Amino acid sequence: MTTKWYVGVDLGGTTIKLAFIDPYGEIVYQGEVPTNTSNGGSEITTDIAKWIDGSLEHLGETKSQLHSIGMGAPGFINMETGYIYQAVNIGWKDFHLKDRLEMDTGLPVIVDNDANIAALGEMWRGAGDGAKNLLCVTLGTGVGGGIVANGNILHGVNGMAGEIGHITAVPEGGYQCNCGKTGCLETVSSATGIARIAKEFITDYPNSLLASESENAGRMTAKLVFDCANKQDECAIKVIEKVTYYLGFALANLANALNPEKIVIGGGVSKAGPTLLEPLEKAFQKFALPRVVEGVSIVTATLGNDAGVIGGAWLAKTKN
Amino acid sequence: MTTKWYVGVDLGGTTIKLAFIDPYGEIVYQGEVPTNTSNGGSEITTDIAKWIDGSLEHLGETKSQLHSIGMGAPGFINMETGYIYQAVNIGWKDFHLKDRLEMDTGLPVIVDNDANIAALGEMWRGAGDGAKNLLCVTLGTGVGGGIVANGNILHGVNGMAGEIGHITAVPEGGYQCNCGKTGCLETVSSATGIARIAKEFITDYPNSLLASESENAGRMTAKLVFDCANKQDECAIKVIEKVTYYLGFALANLANALNPEKIVIGGGVSKAGPTLLEPLEKAFQKFALPRVVEGVSIVTATLGNDAGVIGGAWLAKTKN
Repeated sequence: MTTKWYVGVDLGGTTIKLAFIDPYGEIVYQGEVPTNTSNGGSEITTDIAKWIDGSLEHLGETKSQLHSIGMGAPGFINMETGYIYQAVNIGWKDFHLKDRLEMDTGLPVIVDNDANIAALGEMWRGAGDGAKNLLCVTLGTGVGGGIVANGNILHGVNGMAGEIGHITAVPEGGYQCNCGKTGCLETVSSATGIARIAKEFITDYPNSLLASESENAGRMTAKLVFDCANKQDECAIKVIEKVTYYLGFALANLANALNPEKIVIGGGVSKAGPTLLEPLEKAFQKFALPRVVEGVSIVTATLGNDAGVIGGAWLAKTKN
Repeated sequence: MTTKWYVGVDLGGTTIKLAFIDPYGEIVYQGEVPTNTSNGGSEITTDIAKWIDGSLEHLGETKSQLHSIGMGAPGFINMETGYIYQAVNIGWKDFHLKDRLEMDTGLPVIVDNDANIAALGEMWRGAGDGAKNLLCVTLGTGVGGGIVANGNILHGVNGMAGEIGHITAVPEGGYQCNCGKTGCLETVSSATGIARIAKEFITDYPNSLLASESENAGRMTAKLVFDCANKQDECAIKVIEKVTYYLGFALANLANALNPEKIVIGGGVSKAGPTLLEPLEKAFQKFALPRVVEGVSIVTATLGNDAGVIGGAWLAKTKN
């Protein structure tokens, strides 16, 4: 018996990541193509179809080897119909993604939000380790999230569930967020937010390592903050304490309501490892119920850039 | 064809509410019996069985008219096995509720947390109006909660999901909560919490209506606060602003993550109606994403004391 493969597709603003994945979550073959955002992103589904055909030919397989496609896309999506209301970075507006990709490939397609499929990937084969109740938070340029409860991604009534980055972490006097509110978690726990807080702190610590290193580098970055904290720079340690205080507060409050088994921290900032996780756990424990603390572990994501395609395959496997 | 009935059971510290409910959620017959907490609550399942037998006889029906039992109980419960780890108010510790009740009644039994079945009741036949994504918050002596996502109650990894009352609403300098933390929503938005905040405010407003009315009454209550606010007392209005600020903050943060269609406010405090809901909506809108605000309506519970038995019947209907 031949086991069929699933096609996982993870669409980003600059590249499309694609993979053939077996029913056990192993990547059989993978690649990526540039995201062509010209003409309102109208070539993207064709580019995906071409990659699939070319890769099958390269592997000496035919389309009958493929079961279906699970795809993650950024923006506002109707997950039931696979219709994209708007995806600014891609150029799509009112785009029938599912229908178009099904026509171009001849395969059944299921679509979900990019942050959500990354969460499913980590659940299935990554740091989630099979836990059916998990929170995934991506700390990158912004803060994204996905919530899995009873093994299913939560979408909410109009697809906004999982917007962890816009939980208010600073009730009064917070920074302005792109979403229109102030004090969102994203303003204080994204890479951008960390750098901003650090810039404020170095005025109080002009002789700190962080102050001199950022001056040498010509700019402040989250990576610099963690590097200096690893060298025991007091200023950098204080910045991380503040950042993890807010993040721990927001995650603990969510955990009090959702009682997850795992909280998976991904994105560029998560590369800081224990320098991030240790103060985060301290803050989390301050704000979470003892029994909730008992039930959960906070871990860093393990799949990196593969989380999306693997989660896409999970979606295709379980929902098609 | 005869449609069978479900038995809804809602166990409280002082009474057990029971009802026969048809498959469409209509109460056919209902009653209550005192909760016998003597001998570690060992008579309770027998009392339920006796009520069922007596009621069937009274109605001229036999047990074949009953399909199954759905029951809500307070305390820490393993919902899969119907095993009660501990229910302090009842006297149960390590109690096999499901097994005992099945033996005493000869009917299949499914058990869940009392706050959760109330949420299911409101979803099915109450203020939830069929919405499959809803948050239920009960503002009584404490603050309880239930979260329904995709039509299912969330339990989390160890049954703690929905503990909305222990979301931290006051990060620093909050009151001590029974759970061991400080600043929990319960400390500022329960009836008890409202009275405590009011007691602090009247020292700043010694000539307010609230100050004199509470002195006349010999004590401060949440009801007094709402009564005085309805008479435009500035002090009472300020108390409610503070209470709804915290409640709106906690609910908005949850809604940003869960994107519910309805937020159902129940419990004694919810009887205040618009005097509570109007300032609450204002605070909610300050902290929730615009698209989340668009998708949700905040309403008061409509089933009152029947929510539990109706939710129990829903559980029996859908999970047995």
